[in-house]
Amino acid sequence: MDEFELIARYFAPLQGEGDDLVVGQGDDGAVIAAGSSRLVVVVDTLVAGVHFPLSSPPHAIGYRAGAVNLSDLAAMGSSPRWATLALTLPEADPHWLAEFSSGLAAALQPAATRLIGGDTTRGSLTVTVQLIGLLDGEPLTRAGAQPGDLICVSGTLGDACAGLAVHAEPPAVGSEQMSRDWLVQRFYYPQPRLALGQVLRDLAHAAIDISDGLLADLGHIARSSACAAEIDLDAVPLSAAHLAVCGREQALRNALTGGDDYELVFTLPPSALAALRQQAVELCVDITVIGRIETGSGLHSRAASGAATAVLAASGYRHFS
Amino acid sequence: MDEFELIARYFAPLQGEGDDLVVGQGDDGAVIAAGSSRLVVVVDTLVAGVHFPLSSPPHAIGYRAGAVNLSDLAAMGSSPRWATLALTLPEADPHWLAEFSSGLAAALQPAATRLIGGDTTRGSLTVTVQLIGLLDGEPLTRAGAQPGDLICVSGTLGDACAGLAVHAEPPAVGSEQMSRDWLVQRFYYPQPRLALGQVLRDLAHAAIDISDGLLADLGHIARSSACAAEIDLDAVPLSAAHLAVCGREQALRNALTGGDDYELVFTLPPSALAALRQQAVELCVDITVIGRIETGSGLHSRAASGAATAVLAASGYRHFS
Repeated sequence: MDEFELIARYFAPLQGEGDDLVVGQGDDGAVIAAGSSRLVVVVDTLVAGVHFPLSSPPHAIGYRAGAVNLSDLAAMGSSPRWATLALTLPEADPHWLAEFSSGLAAALQPAATRLIGGDTTRGSLTVTVQLIGLLDGEPLTRAGAQPGDLICVSGTLGDACAGLAVHAEPPAVGSEQMSRDWLVQRFYYPQPRLALGQVLRDLAHAAIDISDGLLADLGHIARSSACAAEIDLDAVPLSAAHLAVCGREQALRNALTGGDDYELVFTLPPSALAALRQQAVELCVDITVIGRIETGSGLHSRAASGAATAVLAASGYRHFS
Repeated sequence: MDEFELIARYFAPLQGEGDDLVVGQGDDGAVIAAGSSRLVVVVDTLVAGVHFPLSSPPHAIGYRAGAVNLSDLAAMGSSPRWATLALTLPEADPHWLAEFSSGLAAALQPAATRLIGGDTTRGSLTVTVQLIGLLDGEPLTRAGAQPGDLICVSGTLGDACAGLAVHAEPPAVGSEQMSRDWLVQRFYYPQPRLALGQVLRDLAHAAIDISDGLLADLGHIARSSACAAEIDLDAVPLSAAHLAVCGREQALRNALTGGDDYELVFTLPPSALAALRQQAVELCVDITVIGRIETGSGLHSRAASGAATAVLAASGYRHFS
């Protein structure tokens, strides 16, 4: 049990009992029943120097604070509607605020999400956004994976982690710098997969957004669903820019353990794959099958290529639970 | 315009348009329409060293983080239901967490409010609680005061400010220390006036909770309602402990400009006073009439006693808008 699981244990008793709570603590968001409506509530805090570099452009900080919360709603299959902002600031610099609010708007407005309130306080830079979304039907949780399900991911993985690693490097030349810039953008401007989440609500058995790395987040699905997850390391999707900057072995490591991509990992019955692929084309989202849910527990990896075999051998990823 | 009003201006454009928002940014809470339900959403951040002393007992920090948000819902006439917690901590100390969570429970559980989720991050101690409440009927806002309304407050004012001032003093003897202890309790353990808020929803025209001091918060009612507020300084309710520790003149200053009491100030038509008094007795809440809403703008004070006249003369409170 890590320190944050320990903390969660202290707060579990405050959840109480009652049928107004459809999904409680411990998933991407909570689902509450208010009258005939179901609402999904999510909250995420970004701390300067912990979740983003102190040198981050304020526009990117504002965007990211909105996007990481939208991503949680996407993973629940919810449509975002309302946001609040708790902003702790060392000082009120008008230029900073203009850029930050513009970045937050760039995340919220395409998602039709309205900022309805908040609180501003003085202190070290800490940004907490809470979102409330509507839910039409049953929520998509971490807990529904079934043996035989395919494990799929959206987009490419590990880019944001690589972007964070190179963002402060001295400039490179030509295509190397273009690749780096693209990776840095993947860190600062993650795309919440809201439309995909809507599609998955009808097709998938379980989903989570990848904020802590593929292994950690897929591990949450396996544990919550009381299943094993077997992944083929050679199938993990890596971007061309990521491969160019890091090489295949490091890129795969980033994909497995680097967070911050905010892509979705989800499981679905093989019969649903064709329908998903068709809708994914319309949404312009790449979907990759990377493994299968099995009976048992823990994560299990296999590898055929040299790079994947090396990662597997070096890391002890074969059997962890 | 102070710095926080400036900040609010940057975020106002992110509110957007639509009939799903009944009350938006700038009141104690936002009111949203979700299906047939109306929900009130509030959020408040407490920063260590800014909103509470670094030496505060963790139980009191947890309680207060819950209570100040419950107070916002009370001022809107809403019934609290669900809470989330965004907790930024320098380290995960089990003793601290046990005390903090117990304090938060002491605020939330009597209000039948369930902690449904949250986020824990590492950084300097910052506590953001968000609450969602249900609203039965029309919300009570800052904007409904009408000329002729009586201005009333619950409880006694200025105690919390005095408690904060004396909390670190060396021990006194006998009744002096008892008075101080009571004032410190008023700071750490404010009583959200939830039952009173329910009563006021049917009787009052406008309400706000006193977090920044009577003058500042009554000023919000006057501005939002486009009215003047005239208060009789001699009528402002002061506790015996507060008078014993601070004397009448300083106690009155604390009541006017000291925050943190989380009592309610509200306006109601004179015809509603008898009904209110009857219900207040049942709720064991003292209600004091301290003035009247007039046509015009700004706050106006009058004073007859020596202490109140001195405060008035020293402060220029007579005419400010």
